[in-house]
Amino acid sequence: MKIENEEFKITLIGAGRVGFHLGKQLKKAGFDILQVFSRNLNNSNKLASLVDSEAINQLSEVSPEADLVIIAVADSAISSVSRKLSEILTEKSLIVHTSGATPSMVFQNYFKRFGVFYPLQTFSFEKEPDFSEVPFCIYSDRPKDLKILKEIASSLSEKVFVINDTQRARLHVAAVFVNNFTNHMYFIGKKILNEENISLDVLMPLIEETTQKIKKNDPFLMQTGPAIRRDQETIKSHLEMLEKHPDFQELYQLLTKNIQQYHL
Amino acid sequence: MKIENEEFKITLIGAGRVGFHLGKQLKKAGFDILQVFSRNLNNSNKLASLVDSEAINQLSEVSPEADLVIIAVADSAISSVSRKLSEILTEKSLIVHTSGATPSMVFQNYFKRFGVFYPLQTFSFEKEPDFSEVPFCIYSDRPKDLKILKEIASSLSEKVFVINDTQRARLHVAAVFVNNFTNHMYFIGKKILNEENISLDVLMPLIEETTQKIKKNDPFLMQTGPAIRRDQETIKSHLEMLEKHPDFQELYQLLTKNIQQYHL
Repeated sequence: MKIENEEFKITLIGAGRVGFHLGKQLKKAGFDILQVFSRNLNNSNKLASLVDSEAINQLSEVSPEADLVIIAVADSAISSVSRKLSEILTEKSLIVHTSGATPSMVFQNYFKRFGVFYPLQTFSFEKEPDFSEVPFCIYSDRPKDLKILKEIASSLSEKVFVINDTQRARLHVAAVFVNNFTNHMYFIGKKILNEENISLDVLMPLIEETTQKIKKNDPFLMQTGPAIRRDQETIKSHLEMLEKHPDFQELYQLLTKNIQQYHL
Repeated sequence: MKIENEEFKITLIGAGRVGFHLGKQLKKAGFDILQVFSRNLNNSNKLASLVDSEAINQLSEVSPEADLVIIAVADSAISSVSRKLSEILTEKSLIVHTSGATPSMVFQNYFKRFGVFYPLQTFSFEKEPDFSEVPFCIYSDRPKDLKILKEIASSLSEKVFVINDTQRARLHVAAVFVNNFTNHMYFIGKKILNEENISLDVLMPLIEETTQKIKKNDPFLMQTGPAIRRDQETIKSHLEMLEKHPDFQELYQLLTKNIQQYHL
């Protein structure tokens, strides 16, 4: 794959869930994957063999020949990895991370050309993601580098958004609510049902409909249930039913109060 | 439509969202809709004309000829409606309500033959539900009546569950978590994004994936995010970003604590 009429070489730092799927997809899109780094050589070998690349497990082995270096490691390791890479990489390489929680500015003491290449989806090793539907949130201070990232992202997905550091931070908090906390709601629902030997399957159509509705409608207008109806009798009976779970009671009460606060 | 080789006549009490869709679907399945009651004659007329039925707006006009009377009114009105209907209806009629929050026992002082016919889905006037996918939670103390309800529900949906009062109450609390509270998570996500001029569309693929994942996987095992990672730095920065919304901060903290409590 060429970017600006040059063969474009990409090195992946990290072979976790994001690096794994991103690497495979970049290869599929025609990019040359120069190296795959993982501290665990088994992991770098596994991905490298899939994308026809060199596996390494020492940052000192990273080649300065990459056009793009994608850092897909734990958020807390991005800074220290960057420091080590700054001893090797030059302005030939554009350096990006894939983190929703980390500002691009984490790179500013180490590199001149840097940015963010954040695929906003939850990945697991078991499931092949449909990349065409994955929103890519990209950013770089330098318009030329932003253009490169846009070109690469567009070769993977139809949904490319330029999102600056402030916006991305917001996006990440919002994602915690709609993904992590929502998943915890499903966990609670399942736990409550299991105690009466009911499968969560009974609620799956409702769960899916709740999601489908907000594709076309404002969730504010879609709110239903005892909280918004101020149905004290039902709320009271629900809290009684949850008496074995004081933590769920507390959540139920706070969420009910919060819903009512926005629906006066 | 015949049940036990007899033409089967159904009267609908209530022409709200549930009554409206249920009435149309029962008609489509071939049942005779004898009467449609709503306090608001406009509403009963609207549904009655669609299902070729008689519209009434006085409970005293309810005919004792119905084989099944479906009470689809607000939970709080079920008891008083039952009291009035008990002056008219006889053992010819099986009486059910469509409420997830109300025990079947609400009927025991008024009728001999009673039960529950609860379509576990969220309905809106704007959207035509796919009834074949709507779980019907049915119940009756009397095996013969349960059999009748099962036959009717099976003519509408492939998903019919016999769910007793205790189980249904549990199901309703669980539904509040997975539907009402989840929808509120979407509301919060959208509000956080709007302040930075980002559309919730950017998060829709993540939202859909979160739902799809739990179709095949235990939500406990699917939990991700800063809470389960005990990523204090991210949690702290998220709380700082939410400083304009102390209510969201409080929710974030409680949900984070609750997730961590189950993932020690």
